Parts: sequence; structure tokens; C-alpha cells
Amino acid sequence: MLNERNPIPVKEAIAKVQACYQTGQTEWVPVTEAATRILAMDITADHHVPPFDRSPYDGYALRSDDTTGASAEQPKKLEVVGHIGAGSVHSEPLTDHQAVRIMTGAAIPKGADAVVMLEDTAAEEIEGRTYVNIMKPSAQQQNISFKGEDVQKGEVIIKKGTEINPGVIALLATFGYASVPVAKKPVIGVIATGSELLEVSEPLEPGRIRNSNAYMISAQLERAGAIPRYYGQLADDLASSIEKISAVLEEVDFLITTGGVSVGDFDLLPEIYQALEADVLFNKVAMRPGSVTTVTTTANNILFGLSGNPSACYVGFELFTRPLIDHFLGKRQIGLPAVEAVLDVDIPKANPFSRFMRGYYYFQDQTVFVQLAGKDKSNMVHSLANANCLIELPGGTAGFNKGDRVLIHRLGE
Amino acid sequence: MLNERNPIPVKEAIAKVQACYQTGQTEWVPVTEAATRILAMDITADHHVPPFDRSPYDGYALRSDDTTGASAEQPKKLEVVGHIGAGSVHSEPLTDHQAVRIMTGAAIPKGADAVVMLEDTAAEEIEGRTYVNIMKPSAQQQNISFKGEDVQKGEVIIKKGTEINPGVIALLATFGYASVPVAKKPVIGVIATGSELLEVSEPLEPGRIRNSNAYMISAQLERAGAIPRYYGQLADDLASSIEKISAVLEEVDFLITTGGVSVGDFDLLPEIYQALEADVLFNKVAMRPGSVTTVTTTANNILFGLSGNPSACYVGFELFTRPLIDHFLGKRQIGLPAVEAVLDVDIPKANPFSRFMRGYYYFQDQTVFVQLAGKDKSNMVHSLANANCLIELPGGTAGFNKGDRVLIHRLGE
Repeated sequence: MLNERNPIPVKEAIAKVQACYQTGQTEWVPVTEAATRILAMDITADHHVPPFDRSPYDGYALRSDDTTGASAEQPKKLEVVGHIGAGSVHSEPLTDHQAVRIMTGAAIPKGADAVVMLEDTAAEEIEGRTYVNIMKPSAQQQNISFKGEDVQKGEVIIKKGTEINPGVIALLATFGYASVPVAKKPVIGVIATGSELLEVSEPLEPGRIRNSNAYMISAQLERAGAIPRYYGQLADDLASSIEKISAVLEEVDFLITTGGVSVGDFDLLPEIYQALEADVLFNKVAMRPGSVTTVTTTANNILFGLSGNPSACYVGFELFTRPLIDHFLGKRQIGLPAVEAVLDVDIPKANPFSRFMRGYYYFQDQTVFVQLAGKDKSNMVHSLANANCLIELPGGTAGFNKGDRVLIHRLGE
Repeated sequence: MLNERNPIPVKEAIAKVQACYQTGQTEWVPVTEAATRILAMDITADHHVPPFDRSPYDGYALRSDDTTGASAEQPKKLEVVGHIGAGSVHSEPLTDHQAVRIMTGAAIPKGADAVVMLEDTAAEEIEGRTYVNIMKPSAQQQNISFKGEDVQKGEVIIKKGTEINPGVIALLATFGYASVPVAKKPVIGVIATGSELLEVSEPLEPGRIRNSNAYMISAQLERAGAIPRYYGQLADDLASSIEKISAVLEEVDFLITTGGVSVGDFDLLPEIYQALEADVLFNKVAMRPGSVTTVTTTANNILFGLSGNPSACYVGFELFTRPLIDHFLGKRQIGLPAVEAVLDVDIPKANPFSRFMRGYYYFQDQTVFVQLAGKDKSNMVHSLANANCLIELPGGTAGFNKGDRVLIHRLGE
């Protein structure tokens, strides 16, 4: 009953899971639904940006030669032969002492090689014709946004694996991607175990608690870019549990179970893994919380056996399941981004195992600080709500002091 | 034609918009759809956590008095009178020299005042009865998670205005919130202006560009927690434009237009505002990009006249529209969170106006650094895709140096 389990280091456990690397498929979605998805192909420019030489200001397009020697006292007078807004084109080339009144974004007329801003000019009507007085000389190419100066046609403008933010959306629209190739989201099954669990809408009963893990994990899955599919709870009966899990494995890309992985007498998962002939990658990790986290593989699926303890469940997901989702989506960032922070609290107690404590990082004076997100008992859901990172404390014989440099894993980015 | 406009400082402009503060309504959604929404009410605990005294480990619940003097050499032998998993209750109170085998999460039986972990015991069968040998004395209250030690019934566990992350979901589920009160998302209309604009699926034409702003703003709206509703482009004709905007104003919480707010000859918005008898809060801000950003109010709506220039449009949204969405949602954080960072690039050119440049911040050695997200010409869409913050550079006569302390406004959080 009390199986021997050999704890392996966290890094080794993560590496074992990542070796199960699997990339998902591509699907095309309308650009209006592409935000927050992951690009599945490199995006190239279908035209130069700007697509033509254009004016960055409201003003007059002119030939710079015509402005030589211009001054406030001796302005150069040019005839205004056209008036164009963005989207319009002036068809006749400019000749000597001609100018075209031009608005921001409009194409520079042929023959013109500079733009003078409106505020540096004065218009004048003489015998029904319009003239503009130029007060200072204009350099060649002054105030022109040149074709292709921002982006060259054919250039890769966004790499596959990029998360589509509003700026990327702007580029996709600019280059005519009415539909966009994105990574298909993995569908991940969630099954809760534990005869103590009530569903969220059930009233409390003696000795029982409500199932919070399945809902929490579903939200973590959505945040990671996956589609959660909750299959309810396992029955206490082994045979029907095996049947249910076998059926679910056919329908999902990965499967997460919560609870039932300890060496407790009512923990069914170890027997289920055996019945499924699943290959156990590990069933004990040298970490707190979540040391009983178990990952197993079948012929064509991966089962994440997360702890039934909410904090351990949360941490197990972020450390082990999330990197595989990142791989599936083809993301460039695999796993939570880790950065260094200054510990803003004493943690005197040592622990032989690596700890991943719920933390709250913040910025002050250009520095990243981190403190504990509330009390950190492993059965405490409360602090999970306030955490924006996991603080990694290496196992050892000494505690940690305020001012120590620690690694934090940023959540929710 | 060339109206006089008086630029006002950015802070003043933001304050003018925020004075239009408006809070939206509350709606109830299933807990499975509540993630990323904003809580509209304080959430209180409907029961203690733990709801009963329970065991944090697999082991034996016992009476600590019975273990006095126990040692490896002289273990104390207790009779095992029950065996309970989480969710089960042992009904009979323990008496002298009795123990109950108990699994993690199960309720402590009456009479017991301590739990000994499985690994510190040895079981033994004698004449069909089960005993457990205890190797060391147990302190009163040892290894018991006490009722209410995490959360007290009635305690406010999450404040209104909090964004619902997976940890919050766990709390909502724990306390039986099958449906959750959240802030209703504002519906925000988007109208593009500019006769140069083609829609994303149209092929390019001379002098014209594709509309990217409407798609970009829609993605910014979604990221901010609003519902975008794109109403297409305004016709060139003033009368029909006024009619369209009037109609849209009846259907949305706020309205955003892109383009048409300059003093250019084809910029219709100033005339439309006049026709609508809209109150102009400002039509010029001492900032780059986006100095022409205009915000006006009608009797029961707010119109954000953002620039047609993509970067200016982007910045105008984040600085002026977003805080109002935050207010509408009742969020505690209003506007982009601003933190200090170390500038990792020289920006020698001074500008009399405040600048909001597209930046990319990153962490190194516990410090927040920021660099420019690509070239930063105001007509450049490209760098928006890479930006994760806006760098605020105060207006003045001097440039900025690598190592300077600057304020960054973090995007997308």
C-alpha cells in the first residue's frame, strides 16, 4: 500500500515532460477573431509601407529648386495647381513654380520632391488663381515618407509563434490578412477525483468540500490558450473509472486529473495507470507543494495527475502542463517567463525540497521586488487569488532573507 | 480653415476625460465563464475554510495523551478502530488507546487531538485486530488543519473591482458561487474615416492604404475588457456622416472614430461635432504622437476622436479611452499601470511636447530596463507589434540618455 517513490528534481521532471513535445495544427480565423491567438506561419508584407511616397503633414508639395533663396522678406510665390487629400492622386506632373496643396497621407505628385508644412506658408488669391508664398528654402526630400521606408514588400514582418496583440492585428490588416493562420487550441480534458468533492452548486455536507480544482484548472487552461473540457468526477469504482478515462483519452489532446495520486488508501490513479499500461514518467517530484504530481503517457496521450490540494494542483499545472501547451501552440516562450527579483520578506524555514511559493511581485525604483501572496500553507486557496508569480526557492538547509535574489515565474502573461 | 487650437498638457486632458466617469451595470455569469471578468461585488465566504478540523496528511488521528513517552524502542500501541478517506466521517468518538487511520482532507474524529504521519508509524495485526505503533510523542493539535484557519465565514475574501484569475475562480467555486456577479462590458462603437481607406479584403489601389486602425482598436478594446462594434467607414458626405454618427451614439456606451480630426481640408469630424452640439473637452494635446486627439461629449455619450495615424490612434486609445473603460468596469487599476524603468538607449532629440514612444521593457538583474520597440516614426505601424509598453518622455529642451530613469506604461495587463 505504501509504495516506495523516488522523488526526482523539478528540472528533470520538467525535461521529461517536455520530451513529449507535440505541435498542434493550424487553422484560419477571421482577423477580427485573431487577437490573443498564436501565429502559425510567418507573415510577410504583400506591399511596401508606405506603398507610395506620401506626405506626413498637411502642406504643399513642391519642387525644392523653386524655393532656393526663399525668406520671410522675400518669399517665393508658387501657383497652387491642385488640392489633394489622402486617397486622391494628382495626375499631372508639377512643372516650374507649381505646388499642390496636399493633406497628410496623400501621394506626392510627380515632379515634386519636398513638402512644406502648412504653417510655414501663406496662401494668396490673385486674379482668380491661388498662390502660396514659401518663406524658407526647402531641402530635397524634405517631409516625404518614402515608399518602403517602414516595411519592404516580401519582408517577414511577424514571426510564427508570436502572440497576436493589437499591434500585430494592425499589421495583419495592413497586409490584407482578412483571415489569419493561427495555432489550433488543444482540447484538454479535466476530471476531478475525490469522494469528498461536491460540485459548486451543491450545499455543504459534513466532511465534504466543494470541488474548486476543476474550475481553477479550467481557468488556467484558458489563460494558457487551451480549451478545457470538464468531464466531471470519477466514480469510486475502479472498473468504471478506467472505462471513463479510456473513453476521454480518445477525445482530448491531453488529460488532467486532480487528486487521487497520493499513496493514500483511496487514491485510485496509480491502479488506473497500471490498467491503462501507462508509462510513468515520474510520480514524485522533489518539490513543495505538489510532490505527488504524476505524469504518465499512453500510446497516444499524456495524463497529468495533479494533486488534489489546490495550491499543489495550481503549481503542478503551471510547471508541467503549461509548457506542453506552449509547445502545442508553437509559442516561442515555453513555460512561465522567469525573471530575477529581490525578496521582500524573510523566509527563515529551510526545506530540503524546492519550493514554489505563491508570490506577488511589484516594481519600485526600477527594481522588481517580490513578497508572499498571503499566508502560504499548502492547503490554502486564499493566496492563489493574489498571486501574480511563483517564487522558486531551491531546496537546502538554510532559509531565505529579505534582500536575497530569487527567481520568480510570472503568471498570466 | 486653419483653426487655432490650444494644446493642453496630457495630464489635464486625461483628467478632463476621467471627469466623465461612468460606472456600468452588473450581470451574472456562470463561474465557468467568469475568468478575466471584473468582480462587481465583494465576495464573502459562505463557510469556514477548512469547514471542519481536518487532516493535512495521510496518517493516524489519535489522542496525544496516549503517545506520551513513545519512542522507537518503546512505541505506544493503539488500536485502529476506523479508516476514513476525505469525504467520510468517523462517527464514534475515540477513547483511550484508539486511533483512526485517516487520509488527507478527512475530518478529524471526535476525541482525537493530533495526527501522526503515516511514515512515523508501523501497523501490526494481532488476533484479527489492527494496531498501530507510534514511535514518538505527539503534541496536542499537531498536524491538524483547524476549521476556519484559512478563511472565516462571512469574511470578504475578494473585493469588487478585482479581475477574476484562476485563483479567484477557485475561491468562487469553493464558496458556491455557481454564478458570479461581474461588470457588464461596455459596448464601444468604432467608425473609421478617411477616403484613402480600403478594407482588409480589398486589393491595393494607387494612393490608398488598407484600414488597419479599426481592427487594431477593436483588439485594444477587447484587451481592455470592452466589446467592440465596428460600424464601417464614414461616407465623404457631411449630412450622411452626421446621421450615421447620431444613430450609432444611440446604440453604444462610447464611440471611437479614427481619423478626420486634424485641421486638414478633408477632416470632417470638427464639423460633425458642431452639428451634434458636442462639447469639446479638448482638440489638441501637448503630446507626440496624437496631438490632434479630440474628445467631445454629447448629452449622453462620449466621442473619442482618435488620430488616423496608427501609432497616434493606438496611444490616444490607451491614454484617454482605456481609463474610462476601467471606470466603467469598476476596476481598481485605472489606466495602464505605470512603473519606473532604466532607459537602455540614447534618445538625443528633444521635443517640446511629451512623447509616448513604443517601448519594450525587460528584466535583467532584478532591474526593469526599457528600449525602443523598433523605429519610432509616427507613421510606423511596425513597432506597435513589438511594444509591451509606452515610454513617457516629458517635453523639454533636452534629450534622454541611456541610464536615465523613465516612466513606462505597461500594455496588455
